[in-house]
Amino acid sequence: MSKRPLILVTNDDGITAPGVRALIEVVKPLGDVVVVAPDSPQSGMGHAITINSTLFVEKISEEGSEIEEYSCSGTPADCVKLAINEILNRRPDLCVSGINHGSNASINVIYSGTMSAAIEAGIEGIPAIGFSLLDYNWSADFTSAKYFARKIVENAINEGIPDDVILNVNFPNLPEKDIKGIKICRQARANWKEEFDKRQNPMGKDYYWLTGKFVNMDKGQDTDIYALQNGYVSVVPVQFDLTAHHCIQQLNSWNLND
Amino acid sequence: MSKRPLILVTNDDGITAPGVRALIEVVKPLGDVVVVAPDSPQSGMGHAITINSTLFVEKISEEGSEIEEYSCSGTPADCVKLAINEILNRRPDLCVSGINHGSNASINVIYSGTMSAAIEAGIEGIPAIGFSLLDYNWSADFTSAKYFARKIVENAINEGIPDDVILNVNFPNLPEKDIKGIKICRQARANWKEEFDKRQNPMGKDYYWLTGKFVNMDKGQDTDIYALQNGYVSVVPVQFDLTAHHCIQQLNSWNLND
Repeated sequence: MSKRPLILVTNDDGITAPGVRALIEVVKPLGDVVVVAPDSPQSGMGHAITINSTLFVEKISEEGSEIEEYSCSGTPADCVKLAINEILNRRPDLCVSGINHGSNASINVIYSGTMSAAIEAGIEGIPAIGFSLLDYNWSADFTSAKYFARKIVENAINEGIPDDVILNVNFPNLPEKDIKGIKICRQARANWKEEFDKRQNPMGKDYYWLTGKFVNMDKGQDTDIYALQNGYVSVVPVQFDLTAHHCIQQLNSWNLND
Repeated sequence: MSKRPLILVTNDDGITAPGVRALIEVVKPLGDVVVVAPDSPQSGMGHAITINSTLFVEKISEEGSEIEEYSCSGTPADCVKLAINEILNRRPDLCVSGINHGSNASINVIYSGTMSAAIEAGIEGIPAIGFSLLDYNWSADFTSAKYFARKIVENAINEGIPDDVILNVNFPNLPEKDIKGIKICRQARANWKEEFDKRQNPMGKDYYWLTGKFVNMDKGQDTDIYALQNGYVSVVPVQFDLTAHHCIQQLNSWNLND
């Protein structure tokens, strides 16, 4: 490659989050970096896009600074669409999203704004990786996550991510010396057991807070949850073809066309 | 089954949309029906859930009316979580979502609130189907969609939807006599070519409207887009295991653990 790769950085915790600062440090030595990230936290936004409202974008880096940064009023998926179509003057060679404050392993991939940004880039044909650390605190320690993130990004640039595949990377909340390595995994079959906290507002009207417990019913040792619980960084290759190809034959036996 | 099946109805266009009224008519003869749907349109919400805000639920049907209806301040996925955990007194046997005003075929499944509700039910282990009509108008004619939706729901109840699979059903905007039948399909590989409409607000600040053109690069004759373009109702079995299983071996050849 004659030019340095152009790397688009985004996230869902917002452009001021420590996690995106850590990710910028990871990729800065590896290419030209442009940041386009939400101006406020967007956790749990899934793959939302803004179609019934306006989008504002503001350049927040100073003229001539090493890294261009833009803050956007939209969702993570909006940020990627805007970056590719309006902000960047060439197609990025890689999109990295995160480092999220909190897990996006297993079924969390479905609700994740971090992964929706990476998947949006993948849909646009741009190699993409989402990174998450299993620590919700704003003061989380990203030291070991940064070390392993760099390894993964270097491999992605050198080897190339397979077409139409996005990497979902999660880091256990451990110091580097206690992390056993990086494992390629499948998504564990798990879900959230919701517990709605029901309250009454001052006007006597009921309302709810969504809370819940993560329940893993998957006993496999090849899952992301198993890897994380055993001290490994998990890497799940993710696709946006949601077709359950294995069911097509079975459904063809239904009486749909009598 | 001794009891009539309990059928949960939801959507993303909001509880007052003509599409959800059409779907209620479809399922009313087939079971006991409870409606829990957003109080306002939620299109493009993807799989968003409300974690940083409160949720309000209001019973809007009158005491003793044939069908219980609840309007919810959250997203389609919130509606399903609330219905299952707080509103319904037994687990639903089926969840149907829609009928959406507009296509959720191909890549639209990723951005779809209609499908996120159905997928949320699927994650909870409840058989689920999302329905969409290829007509964005509020005054869309749901006559033929209703006819084919009934066939599909009856088959789903009789045959059973495979575990961890959700049906994504799209209806062409045609009268019943011009619809050739129902086809089981795979999701077409297509995407949106974004065109951001850039404007200036009265204070001189730039803003954008997201618009775009749907581009299908998939020439397959087994896709949902092909079926719809040729006068068929498309049914895509959808899964929430996003793992690209076919890539795991290739990624294991990367130098991640030197």
